[in-house]
Amino acid sequence: VAELDLIRAIARALSPPGERVVRWVGDDAAVIKARPLCVTSIDTVAEGVHFHSATHSPREVGHKALAAALSDLAAMGADTGEAYVSLVLPRAHPHGDALALVEEMAALADRTGTTIAGGDVVSGPGVVVSVCVVGWADSEDELAGRDAAKEGDVVAVTGSLGASGAGLILIEGGSAQGELQEAHRRPQPRLAAGRALARAGVSSMIDLSDGLATDARHLALAGGVRLEIDLESIPVAAGVAEVATGAGLDARTLAVTAGEDYELLVTVPQERWDAATAAARTAGSTLSRLGEVVAGEGVAFREGDGSLREGLRGHEHR
Amino acid sequence: VAELDLIRAIARALSPPGERVVRWVGDDAAVIKARPLCVTSIDTVAEGVHFHSATHSPREVGHKALAAALSDLAAMGADTGEAYVSLVLPRAHPHGDALALVEEMAALADRTGTTIAGGDVVSGPGVVVSVCVVGWADSEDELAGRDAAKEGDVVAVTGSLGASGAGLILIEGGSAQGELQEAHRRPQPRLAAGRALARAGVSSMIDLSDGLATDARHLALAGGVRLEIDLESIPVAAGVAEVATGAGLDARTLAVTAGEDYELLVTVPQERWDAATAAARTAGSTLSRLGEVVAGEGVAFREGDGSLREGLRGHEHR
Repeated sequence: VAELDLIRAIARALSPPGERVVRWVGDDAAVIKARPLCVTSIDTVAEGVHFHSATHSPREVGHKALAAALSDLAAMGADTGEAYVSLVLPRAHPHGDALALVEEMAALADRTGTTIAGGDVVSGPGVVVSVCVVGWADSEDELAGRDAAKEGDVVAVTGSLGASGAGLILIEGGSAQGELQEAHRRPQPRLAAGRALARAGVSSMIDLSDGLATDARHLALAGGVRLEIDLESIPVAAGVAEVATGAGLDARTLAVTAGEDYELLVTVPQERWDAATAAARTAGSTLSRLGEVVAGEGVAFREGDGSLREGLRGHEHR
Repeated sequence: VAELDLIRAIARALSPPGERVVRWVGDDAAVIKARPLCVTSIDTVAEGVHFHSATHSPREVGHKALAAALSDLAAMGADTGEAYVSLVLPRAHPHGDALALVEEMAALADRTGTTIAGGDVVSGPGVVVSVCVVGWADSEDELAGRDAAKEGDVVAVTGSLGASGAGLILIEGGSAQGELQEAHRRPQPRLAAGRALARAGVSSMIDLSDGLATDARHLALAGGVRLEIDLESIPVAAGVAEVATGAGLDARTLAVTAGEDYELLVTVPQERWDAATAAARTAGSTLSRLGEVVAGEGVAFREGDGSLREGLRGHEHR
């Protein structure tokens, strides 16, 4: 049966498991030696919604599916562990494409210390890739959630924003190659920065999948607070301003609404600020101060003239 | 945004988590207090392949998706823990249908001691439900794999076979109601039997999703052995013979090829046979002796006249 050939080819494409893996691919379930806390998330990308075959190669889809899932572990500060992959393919889908998708996923797994320990390949109405990632921690101190932002905390973000959104504009405009396009196609989960920031004592953390404007609302809602963010403080990625201007958009608005940068938005108690910036730097990233947590609800963006702008939204749940 | 309303409604449909759940729905990832061994599997059902909206209600799809995933934990002998659910829906899909699907899944989760601890709802090309289940064990002795069947072991199966396949024939023939149809629509994962049999020392175990003919081949291949099974020993479920006759099929052939009974196929060292049958009984099941493990490879079925039949296949991976 052809599907079984594909499954065998996929199994061969995976790297041998680490020493904590007792059983893996080929059994009814994987068996992993646990650490004290198991951190788990599932994330799905579907053809026609999260990617289009005209603009994303199978390799890019594989990368993106695992990267988006790992980004949730980054946002918790967890160490990566295992990934379990469900691959839904139309009946006539070329095996070579499916294998390329898995190979690229396996390459990202290797680079991030993740074992692809199980999966499922089934027929279905289109290409859909679900990835369940399992991370680990030894104590709750090592992790950060969404719900503990406090009045007076600093609001900050890692790295720079807007590259993925600008890359998508270029791809949709027919320009396939370039750094911004690559940022859109192969987002990198900020695992090292997430671990470092959680251990440095940030009060809350979330990864920017839907865009800062929307993801900041999640932190505000979960914490029962209001986030005030200076638009002029937004670290806009190199090259984004030119693309935004060409598209008739404001660069900072693009940067906070376009999403899929997978940088980390954090709230930091004032007394932990120095530790947090040092932690981000040690992890090879940067931390930009954007504003502060105040009493109230929701998110407001402060314009250059001091006026507050509400209601900005990123790409909501698709 | 409508999708967020649906996600909130889904979160309300879930039971409160158990005490081992530190963080769950609403954070970037769930955080669970681990036991020593983490047992994980992902399983996917897709519209048009594993179910059809004409014959499966949303509630039945929800049940089936979680039941199939939990059956993999049963086949390992693991205790159930958490489930992570990815729900892909067409854009115009009625929210009521999606909620009914999740409610029925939540009901099965409650009955089996499983916490639905996270998930994802996205748009996509059709209804696709992926469920990643996490189970737990305290030591490897409590678990069984696929790969340790040995020459001389007894081959045995829990419960009876063919009800799901016969139910599907009736459903496709326009007869919607009845016990066999219910067996097809709401398969039950044999969690208690799986735990009991693993602890009683079976040498290998697998759940019957693709049908005994195919799943027995998996045990034979993984163990490097051959399974010889007496067709006359197959425990055919009540009512299956009549349906098979009406469809011009042999009842035992239907029972070993139709699949989706989710009973457990085991190989048992001779000296553990009494313990295994007692364990199955205590778990509310039965264990039928089907044949034995011999040197060689593959699976053969012995007919009433003593002749061996090879090449029988169940529903292969779809």
